Amino acid sequence: MRIEIIASGDEIVTGRITDTNSSRLAFELTLRGFDVARIHAIGDDLDGISALLLECASRAESVICAGGLGPTSDDLTTEAAANAAGATLEFREEAWREIEERFAKINLPLAPTNRKQAFLPAGAEILPNPIGTAPGFLMNIDNTPCFFAPGVPRELFRMFDEQILPRLEKTRTDSDVYTARIWRTFGHTESGLGELLQGLAKDDRSVRLSFRASFPEIIVGLSVRAENLGEAERKLESLAPDVERRIGQWVYTRDNRGLPEVVGDILREKGLKLAVAESCTGGMIGEMLTTVPGCSDYFAGGVISYSNELKIKVLDVPEEIIRRHGAVSAECARFMAEGARKLAGAHIGLAVTGVAGPGGGTPEKPVGAVWLACASDRGVESRGGQWPRGDREQIRLITSFAALDLLRRVLTE
Amino acid sequence: MRIEIIASGDEIVTGRITDTNSSRLAFELTLRGFDVARIHAIGDDLDGISALLLECASRAESVICAGGLGPTSDDLTTEAAANAAGATLEFREEAWREIEERFAKINLPLAPTNRKQAFLPAGAEILPNPIGTAPGFLMNIDNTPCFFAPGVPRELFRMFDEQILPRLEKTRTDSDVYTARIWRTFGHTESGLGELLQGLAKDDRSVRLSFRASFPEIIVGLSVRAENLGEAERKLESLAPDVERRIGQWVYTRDNRGLPEVVGDILREKGLKLAVAESCTGGMIGEMLTTVPGCSDYFAGGVISYSNELKIKVLDVPEEIIRRHGAVSAECARFMAEGARKLAGAHIGLAVTGVAGPGGGTPEKPVGAVWLACASDRGVESRGGQWPRGDREQIRLITSFAALDLLRRVLTE
Repeated sequence: MRIEIIASGDEIVTGRITDTNSSRLAFELTLRGFDVARIHAIGDDLDGISALLLECASRAESVICAGGLGPTSDDLTTEAAANAAGATLEFREEAWREIEERFAKINLPLAPTNRKQAFLPAGAEILPNPIGTAPGFLMNIDNTPCFFAPGVPRELFRMFDEQILPRLEKTRTDSDVYTARIWRTFGHTESGLGELLQGLAKDDRSVRLSFRASFPEIIVGLSVRAENLGEAERKLESLAPDVERRIGQWVYTRDNRGLPEVVGDILREKGLKLAVAESCTGGMIGEMLTTVPGCSDYFAGGVISYSNELKIKVLDVPEEIIRRHGAVSAECARFMAEGARKLAGAHIGLAVTGVAGPGGGTPEKPVGAVWLACASDRGVESRGGQWPRGDREQIRLITSFAALDLLRRVLTE
Repeated sequence: MRIEIIASGDEIVTGRITDTNSSRLAFELTLRGFDVARIHAIGDDLDGISALLLECASRAESVICAGGLGPTSDDLTTEAAANAAGATLEFREEAWREIEERFAKINLPLAPTNRKQAFLPAGAEILPNPIGTAPGFLMNIDNTPCFFAPGVPRELFRMFDEQILPRLEKTRTDSDVYTARIWRTFGHTESGLGELLQGLAKDDRSVRLSFRASFPEIIVGLSVRAENLGEAERKLESLAPDVERRIGQWVYTRDNRGLPEVVGDILREKGLKLAVAESCTGGMIGEMLTTVPGCSDYFAGGVISYSNELKIKVLDVPEEIIRRHGAVSAECARFMAEGARKLAGAHIGLAVTGVAGPGGGTPEKPVGAVWLACASDRGVESRGGQWPRGDREQIRLITSFAALDLLRRVLTE
């Protein structure tokens, strides 16, 4: 089934943001056996969007259009959809009620402009948006089902999961069934994983291997097509051990949990408390750990010891250590981890110190030099790294991931 | 001048990578007054690319196509371009020499497949690629100049700067010039700002108002077209005070610096050191502040006091305060801010404590209840809030922004 995706918004065609929605939609669709033939971006241009919708509808079997459903004057997608379908805009009571309920629930006053969001093309099926104010809709253009959703990622993907995907599954023309599994990995490159998996079911056209780089992790997907779900799942089951054997050492989860959640679940299960000491990451590890609801079960907190003064005064790193080895050293990381552990009365202390750049590098400790340490009652494990490339944000992100992955390995050893 | 961009490659339409080339091209082009009408992505499909090239060439005044010039069998763009133009592929001696020289220079053996890269459409102008093996080319399709460049970002943008942009500048047909300004705001909604700005130059088609919601901030853009830059800038100057009058109270910057950078620049200018104490944000404020290179000039670090124990033990919040008022209270936030300030020997202490949810809410302190405090030698300023909506991540993000905005207001009062 050939699908085309449209992202609308001046912010995309003027380059103010990168459209990441479309590639995530493409990945989710590909994983389920749909074919994304084209992805388009277009600005806030009424006639342009109409024309593009008609072109896509004439080629594709389904169209997904994200963005431009908001209340302001540059939100033109709904009107463009109506024009493309030759339909008028109608005030829809049920959409208005949904918007009113949504605003009441979040205790916000309705602006008069929000009324605009209840005007939908005649004949469109409303797609509820439980977490935003703009409802989506489904309508046929040139006999092709076209889905319209907000461009806000969390609203778009909630609507994709709950409204769009089930309808696509129902209308797909081939009788084949797809099932898929993912492995989330950290620590190896995409081409490296590709090589390890080379030859896997290679002559079997019903098996599709896919990779998605979501820095700094690589998500490996395996989808299998068969005539019925049972057969597809049996085939997947028979291939999975081979995938595990080849790339298992880099896999941190086989479900959709992120690394902070995986680590948190292990800590909770073992009844352990964690504290952090962060230098170059400046709070990022704590921030990642606390994305997980209920993390107070295992996360005590910690110290952002950006200055050496805080390392010495609060974490009890001996001044002598910093003078002799520098703040970016195995020795300093080890004292930081132990210091955080003791300060918080936690079982585990996790510390990072490094040069995130772009300034601050030296010949001995260039930008990208990082030390990690994990302290527990079994002692301190430390690891040094030199990230070969990347800007400040990438170095900080990969360092935070590496720290959590070190913790995961220490906990599961 | 209307330009369309094409990114080709299966890796894009299957969602393996996000196409960041196109948005960067769009940004560079927009900045120079070109109009990017549409951005497309298409897989490695010979006929599909040909058809798309013809469509773009019939609409746009110029087309830039990136990707698919490599030596392997899935690199189909050159052949597709030839087909679209009705041209044959010719072996081009000068292209071959360039490829040979390139391989000699990087000391790599030439593979037989590389010969493919010297076959270009008849009549195409070769665009040298000094840092890669695939030369680009320029050719007319349907009388529209179409530029072809590799998808490797550094090769593409080198070629864009040296080859494509100078040619575009020479061939631009309209004399219109474009200039723009942005206002980055925090604290008001997109629809609210839209209403405040309603009617601004509304009958003037050369003025364009745009909004970009990048949660939790809203970026307001105003772009103006005129016959020359002087006139465009005069017009923008004449409109800017009206924008300021309407939305100035929500604006935190008029350039492209983010809130952490704005706050950091004020701290640096005033010679002040900052420390943070974070509860529900778990390190996010520190993480945001440390995205800015050189932040060690003004950021000492702080404490992630997720547990009450750390609040009491490290930040010196009296146990009595937490027992009487709770950890989410003005009193606790004030002690936390003062504690962080003293601990780090900083001039300013910034603290947040709140209920990020989804669990942990009570009737008195529901999910979204937050207290902020900013301590300096002039005393402690605190502010309470109840975010009306949002999931855990949104509450944490808006809380971090609110804390930095409170700091900004305290610093500039």
